Amino acid sequence: MTEEVKRNVRLTIEYEGTEYAGWQCQDDQPTVQAAMIMSIEKALGERVIVYGASRTDSGVHSRGQTANFRTSSQLAAWKIGHALNSYLPEDIAVVEVSDAPDDFHAQFNAKGKWYRYMVRNEMYRSAVDRAFSHLVRGTIDVTAMQEAAKRLVGKHDFRAFATQVTAKKNTVRTMKRVEWTKEGSMLTLDVEGDGFLYNMVRTFAGTMLKIGGGAWDAARMDAIIESKDRKQAGPVAAPCGLTLMRVYY
Amino acid sequence: MTEEVKRNVRLTIEYEGTEYAGWQCQDDQPTVQAAMIMSIEKALGERVIVYGASRTDSGVHSRGQTANFRTSSQLAAWKIGHALNSYLPEDIAVVEVSDAPDDFHAQFNAKGKWYRYMVRNEMYRSAVDRAFSHLVRGTIDVTAMQEAAKRLVGKHDFRAFATQVTAKKNTVRTMKRVEWTKEGSMLTLDVEGDGFLYNMVRTFAGTMLKIGGGAWDAARMDAIIESKDRKQAGPVAAPCGLTLMRVYY
Repeated sequence: MTEEVKRNVRLTIEYEGTEYAGWQCQDDQPTVQAAMIMSIEKALGERVIVYGASRTDSGVHSRGQTANFRTSSQLAAWKIGHALNSYLPEDIAVVEVSDAPDDFHAQFNAKGKWYRYMVRNEMYRSAVDRAFSHLVRGTIDVTAMQEAAKRLVGKHDFRAFATQVTAKKNTVRTMKRVEWTKEGSMLTLDVEGDGFLYNMVRTFAGTMLKIGGGAWDAARMDAIIESKDRKQAGPVAAPCGLTLMRVYY
Repeated sequence: MTEEVKRNVRLTIEYEGTEYAGWQCQDDQPTVQAAMIMSIEKALGERVIVYGASRTDSGVHSRGQTANFRTSSQLAAWKIGHALNSYLPEDIAVVEVSDAPDDFHAQFNAKGKWYRYMVRNEMYRSAVDRAFSHLVRGTIDVTAMQEAAKRLVGKHDFRAFATQVTAKKNTVRTMKRVEWTKEGSMLTLDVEGDGFLYNMVRTFAGTMLKIGGGAWDAARMDAIIESKDRKQAGPVAAPCGLTLMRVYY
């Protein structure tokens, strides 16, 4: 019996999402999951399923995507990391590898996630920060955005910030941290919560940028949450600004 | 007489140096200076010389390269920025433009520069930080490097840290700040001084990485400075870790 239980390997994966149609495998489009499956096949000689904690969207980046897969390989965990990195393209890298308990599942066991959205507030585009931030020209009222961010903290029904959500779906989530910080012309939004609806962080960002731009005031955030109506919130901000920072278990 | 004095335009230029053979024009190799000259010709219809403050090397990046050029164009400074950016490749961007006093020269008027060298100290390569940091595996003693860095501060003959320097050249420079900071697995060396010899910052980094790796102790830095002998210092660290942050006038 026990011989049938294959070793469970846990990975932390970094990627620049620019060139990928997101995490999840899709026909005829490059995805991070497909690149991972291919590298494992080349490195370990096995075709496996790789389970990722977050289904990051097209163009979204990661510093902390967590995944797991089963293997018969007896290679030391740290050597698996080097083997995978040697087959992965330079915009994807395994940065942590460990043997996980048999029942560890990257997606189902996740207790929370930390996402970061970066906004470059300048007149001109950047060369150095171009891949990982979204350019917004014009004056941004960071204080107003910070005020709006506070209203998102806590347990709320976040239906107004979800794309393509069915009526039946439970859209209540708890946000532990929603916070803007400013360093020079870079505005950083950190969002930590127990779960996220589709496009939720980018819709948080898009809504707060409306407030920061002066179109809406911060207090309107309460009304938007209350409405549970997607049409009341702001647009989905560009994917290039979003990075999955960490998954908590 | 005054009609002959052309307008003097000052630029701050960001670039990712990965794909360039440095700042300065070279036959048959892509350089940032050549890209700037080409973009000005396309945007303003004039072939000009662009003077850069720092002759950054192949693979070295910039957040603050400063340059100037003369033009007959009457276009508002901020519009020149947008026009140049529309012709520049995505890894080069003009981030500040202003009209400068007639006697401003980006290279000759520079009073100091700030360079940053970034070292990623991890077992595995990074996807997100790959372009702007140098990967060093194994344990690094940051405290020893901080101790060594202090010994470089002040006015010294830095001949031991210069590549291809003639016997006659004045190699005395004053370093205002030489400092390592650590955030997670990223070690950042900030160096500010009144002038820099060829390969000096990268040789600082290479020498201190020898010390951080335990091959040499921090006190040896004094003897290396004293020796004025290039062979006593460490290797030139990889260009990808270096970024020109700012030029002071």
